[in-house]
Amino acid sequence: MSFDSTIHAKAVELTKLSYQMTAAAGSGHPTSAASLAHLTTVLMYQHMRWEPTNPGHVSSDRLVLSEGHAVPIIYAACADLGVTIGKAGDGMRSMQLQDIETLRDIDSLIDGHPNPAVGFNFFDAATGSLGQGLSVAAGIAAGAKLDGLDKRIFCVIGDGESREGQIWEAVDFIIDFGLKGVCPIFNCNEYGQSDTVSAQQSGDVLKSKLEAAGMDVLQIDGHNPTQIQNALSSHAQTMYDPQAKPVAIVAVCVKGWGSPSQQGDGHHGKPADGGDLDQALTELEQTGRQVGATADMPLTTSAIAEKKPAAANRKPVMSFSEAATAFGMTDQVIKGNFATRRAYGLALHALGQAFDDVVALDADVKNSTFAEDFYKDDQLRDRFFESRIAEQNMISVAAGLSAAGKTPFVSTFAKFLTRAYDQIEMAVNSGANINICGSHAGITLAADGPSQMGLPDVAWFRSWTTVANHSGYPAFYVLQPSDAHQAYALTVAMAQHEGASYIRTLRPDVEFLYGNEHEFHLGGHEVLTAGRDLLICASGYMVHEANRALEMLDGQGIDATLVDLYSLPFDQEAILDLANQNNGMILTIEDNYGGGIGSAIADAVSADGGGFNVRQMCVRRIPKSGKTPDDVLTYCGLSAEHIVAQAMSLLQLTTA
Amino acid sequence: MSFDSTIHAKAVELTKLSYQMTAAAGSGHPTSAASLAHLTTVLMYQHMRWEPTNPGHVSSDRLVLSEGHAVPIIYAACADLGVTIGKAGDGMRSMQLQDIETLRDIDSLIDGHPNPAVGFNFFDAATGSLGQGLSVAAGIAAGAKLDGLDKRIFCVIGDGESREGQIWEAVDFIIDFGLKGVCPIFNCNEYGQSDTVSAQQSGDVLKSKLEAAGMDVLQIDGHNPTQIQNALSSHAQTMYDPQAKPVAIVAVCVKGWGSPSQQGDGHHGKPADGGDLDQALTELEQTGRQVGATADMPLTTSAIAEKKPAAANRKPVMSFSEAATAFGMTDQVIKGNFATRRAYGLALHALGQAFDDVVALDADVKNSTFAEDFYKDDQLRDRFFESRIAEQNMISVAAGLSAAGKTPFVSTFAKFLTRAYDQIEMAVNSGANINICGSHAGITLAADGPSQMGLPDVAWFRSWTTVANHSGYPAFYVLQPSDAHQAYALTVAMAQHEGASYIRTLRPDVEFLYGNEHEFHLGGHEVLTAGRDLLICASGYMVHEANRALEMLDGQGIDATLVDLYSLPFDQEAILDLANQNNGMILTIEDNYGGGIGSAIADAVSADGGGFNVRQMCVRRIPKSGKTPDDVLTYCGLSAEHIVAQAMSLLQLTTA
Repeated sequence: MSFDSTIHAKAVELTKLSYQMTAAAGSGHPTSAASLAHLTTVLMYQHMRWEPTNPGHVSSDRLVLSEGHAVPIIYAACADLGVTIGKAGDGMRSMQLQDIETLRDIDSLIDGHPNPAVGFNFFDAATGSLGQGLSVAAGIAAGAKLDGLDKRIFCVIGDGESREGQIWEAVDFIIDFGLKGVCPIFNCNEYGQSDTVSAQQSGDVLKSKLEAAGMDVLQIDGHNPTQIQNALSSHAQTMYDPQAKPVAIVAVCVKGWGSPSQQGDGHHGKPADGGDLDQALTELEQTGRQVGATADMPLTTSAIAEKKPAAANRKPVMSFSEAATAFGMTDQVIKGNFATRRAYGLALHALGQAFDDVVALDADVKNSTFAEDFYKDDQLRDRFFESRIAEQNMISVAAGLSAAGKTPFVSTFAKFLTRAYDQIEMAVNSGANINICGSHAGITLAADGPSQMGLPDVAWFRSWTTVANHSGYPAFYVLQPSDAHQAYALTVAMAQHEGASYIRTLRPDVEFLYGNEHEFHLGGHEVLTAGRDLLICASGYMVHEANRALEMLDGQGIDATLVDLYSLPFDQEAILDLANQNNGMILTIEDNYGGGIGSAIADAVSADGGGFNVRQMCVRRIPKSGKTPDDVLTYCGLSAEHIVAQAMSLLQLTTA
Repeated sequence: MSFDSTIHAKAVELTKLSYQMTAAAGSGHPTSAASLAHLTTVLMYQHMRWEPTNPGHVSSDRLVLSEGHAVPIIYAACADLGVTIGKAGDGMRSMQLQDIETLRDIDSLIDGHPNPAVGFNFFDAATGSLGQGLSVAAGIAAGAKLDGLDKRIFCVIGDGESREGQIWEAVDFIIDFGLKGVCPIFNCNEYGQSDTVSAQQSGDVLKSKLEAAGMDVLQIDGHNPTQIQNALSSHAQTMYDPQAKPVAIVAVCVKGWGSPSQQGDGHHGKPADGGDLDQALTELEQTGRQVGATADMPLTTSAIAEKKPAAANRKPVMSFSEAATAFGMTDQVIKGNFATRRAYGLALHALGQAFDDVVALDADVKNSTFAEDFYKDDQLRDRFFESRIAEQNMISVAAGLSAAGKTPFVSTFAKFLTRAYDQIEMAVNSGANINICGSHAGITLAADGPSQMGLPDVAWFRSWTTVANHSGYPAFYVLQPSDAHQAYALTVAMAQHEGASYIRTLRPDVEFLYGNEHEFHLGGHEVLTAGRDLLICASGYMVHEANRALEMLDGQGIDATLVDLYSLPFDQEAILDLANQNNGMILTIEDNYGGGIGSAIADAVSADGGGFNVRQMCVRRIPKSGKTPDDVLTYCGLSAEHIVAQAMSLLQLTTA
């Protein structure tokens, strides 16, 4: 009974700390924490191979708390074990028991939900927005598999949380890629936030669903230490048995375990205080006695396997022309038309060969995004993760891969990424080095119609360009290349940048505007034509349309400046200078909904106070199918003719 | 054999039309269309109860094509049946066979994917972005159930598409609510876009997953007319048998059915042309002969049940004060502090009582969003759909409810909605009358931390305010009430507006700024204080912080104007006038990432060209937990003290 009684004692202790810390904070989720007390104790004090002094050790087992609000129990264990916390440079130290009193305090790194970016390094990724952790765990496992590490990733998921479709996308992904290192543990405590969970999320139905997906399921009492230990050991064995299916654990737990007054409906997310707190703690002690809790054997973490992966190896990357030659695309280059989406594929391929930490993911559109160039290279095949039609999972897997030291490139249509914006935000909050390609951006997609076009995406990603991430960089760079050379170069630049970036590629072939000698960088812009009457800022396809307009304007005696504004953010000083050289007259052109480059320019000039005049051209009606880009540009008032008319109007040369 | 042979003949005919129309368009998905030829024929020509002359009849059965790219087969059937198309006012007419030649043309309403908003009324919602249709079907069914209609909603889903987690959210929802009117039909044709589907999406695993979720599954040959008919009849019977489980059909279909040269890998999304087209058509005819295709019996659609639901009944809505009294909240009102999220709950409750078309949905946070006020009213209970932790499904269900004539109000934390932006976009594209509440917006959520805060949401929704929807309104109104009166009034205004709106509510209690006599409307703003030195524009919580700053500024001799900019879009003329009355000096304040009201102001003033000076205050770093709103406001540089400093700096009264 020693093991069980010792685990019970520690579980009681950690649960008490959870009540105490949430009471001190005035908010938090102690009853959720209590439901995980035994699982946490067995994992962190006995089963996981890790070192509290170095929780991020590359070979150590990991715990992903998908059910992020239950974090107090983890904090309690970390404080008890003296886990190293803090940021390098800010002074790393051992967590102390008194640290738990600072839960949710503005000055503390004991945040309300798992937040590694503020210095709580035990966690690989920020969680708290439900449904995402199993995908993160899968990403960490995928990275470990590439590195030949046998580390195990334990992922705790709530029963109510398992309603999220992303959990099931992650299950399919785990099975597709044989990621048996992931140990999903479902916390079936019957209560969600505002109600008991649906019967669809009961332990039995959960088991059936997992089995139907191809997992073996171990059902246990989540407060029985021996059952927990046995289940975890069974999971461990599957990793070394090729015949064994992946295993998931479905644990029956009690929300508010140990304190009857905290159980049942209405206690989710409520700290106990005053008399209620005293009662909860007293009841806990009583429960401890009932289950024979006695700390009568030492609890030690298991030692890490010492294996280390090879350090990431990066060689120089080919230029666009070298890559086009190497990968058999010279004919296309000679034609003089080359889609930016094709250039992305070329660059991804070249990067895969040069940087062995680069991995790629796509969502069953790799022959449209051209991520398939990476996939088709036998040397790179096992670094490609076909994520199927499941974008939420794909993004969170990428966050996990980043936590595992990889440099993920994720691609699908810009439109389909919009269902994964929560996941992208959590990746940024985690400090992930995530590179995202949204293809088929804007209306020049044409024939497929608006269900496939990326339109409000620039506005959303631009919001991130106004924010500094935890490294002090813009939280996102937004890149909109206008030709293949630029798309190639910017994709390479993304790989070299530590942080999040988003590149928009286009469906149609476009002419070359640049050559190998041009350099492009995150934050840059390019002056294509220098004029004096009017500053035109455009990006992507609209640079080409603007070029056509420039010829017509020239015929009208208008000497316009054309800037390829391929990056957000951009150099505001430089753009303001150009605007001043053009009488403060600015025309912005983009084939997406408002809030994009036009608003970025408006922000810059209105902050400056000089007499600027900005006319914004963007998509102001919901598009429809059209057979050609020209058709849809005309439908949306963005053709070269429209540009000329707007320019003339802005310069007050017409009454339009 | 008459039935089978006749169905085969029609299937061949419709498939030929699919090849012809995509060839004419130069793009499209004929092989996907071919895989659905028999299912479409049996449904539309025999089984569904509907009238081609009135496809939107309130009682008629519906077909939701979740696998939207397969639409050519539906277009072919609609052209053959002479379905009514077009917009009222634009001239509605019978579709003709020659219309299919205009597929994807800019001037035609035969769009690349189902697009009811351009006039193809056979469809209830726009599809094409995968994974959403089953939720839409569930929403239509939920509306039908409320109206006592027994209409059936057939939903065709791709096998590759069934990887999307949202499909499984929809399955759980269908079972939770006993929506046996929905008939999910899975098109198992083995091929996705860029690859064969994963084994996880095979017909057998799909069957197991559906059974585990609680459905009975009928596995059929998707090209066997009798099997199709029998399966559909079995589904029909379940609707009247309370003991019967919901039924799903898993159909084995052939991508490119009928034309061997179009089968196998590499044909997804590719029209056949020239010799390939001739070959495909020839093979089709040959296949027809092989299966005994002979049009030897008449095909007629089944008659609609004549039952009509009662017309929606709307009574006057109580004022905030009346509602507070009626619903026992006078104590809270007397205290003088009332959270805008509470006011939303109050308004939703009042609306539910006054407008019997209003329905409510929430994602297990109803006790935080206060949608629970609606839920707890026994008279309204069956119009509340607890959608559990599954936001994507919730949004698309709302789109379906809107198509069924309901006025849905959807709520969860603003943060969690970001994983449903694709679904929201598709709802707008469908012309849905969808009202969305994003609660716990901004950083004043405080203690829970950034995983729960709505931060880049304003930027995304603001993008929609720059676009006109199909009715000519802004595609979204974005409402950010600053006090309870305003929140209540704006929620009521949302219900009165036909179109999409988004309201952001806050966690903390705030003081009352307004009374019953104030009127608020979509597009409005409120001048709280009239000054002359500086125009301050703020929204939500920041109006209160700005008020505190105003006192301090007054002490410095600065006479500031304060505008509560509670709506995007807003009256630009009026705001520019106010700016001119304040020397063109503008300070904008919001507790979310950039791209929100600050950029909206910047857009307006930079278009005007006068010498405005806009200083934007927003959140420029990733927030963390803090115990109080003040803590996090200070952390993010948005406290009243910071506002004063920025104002002084803008007016150049300091060197900051």
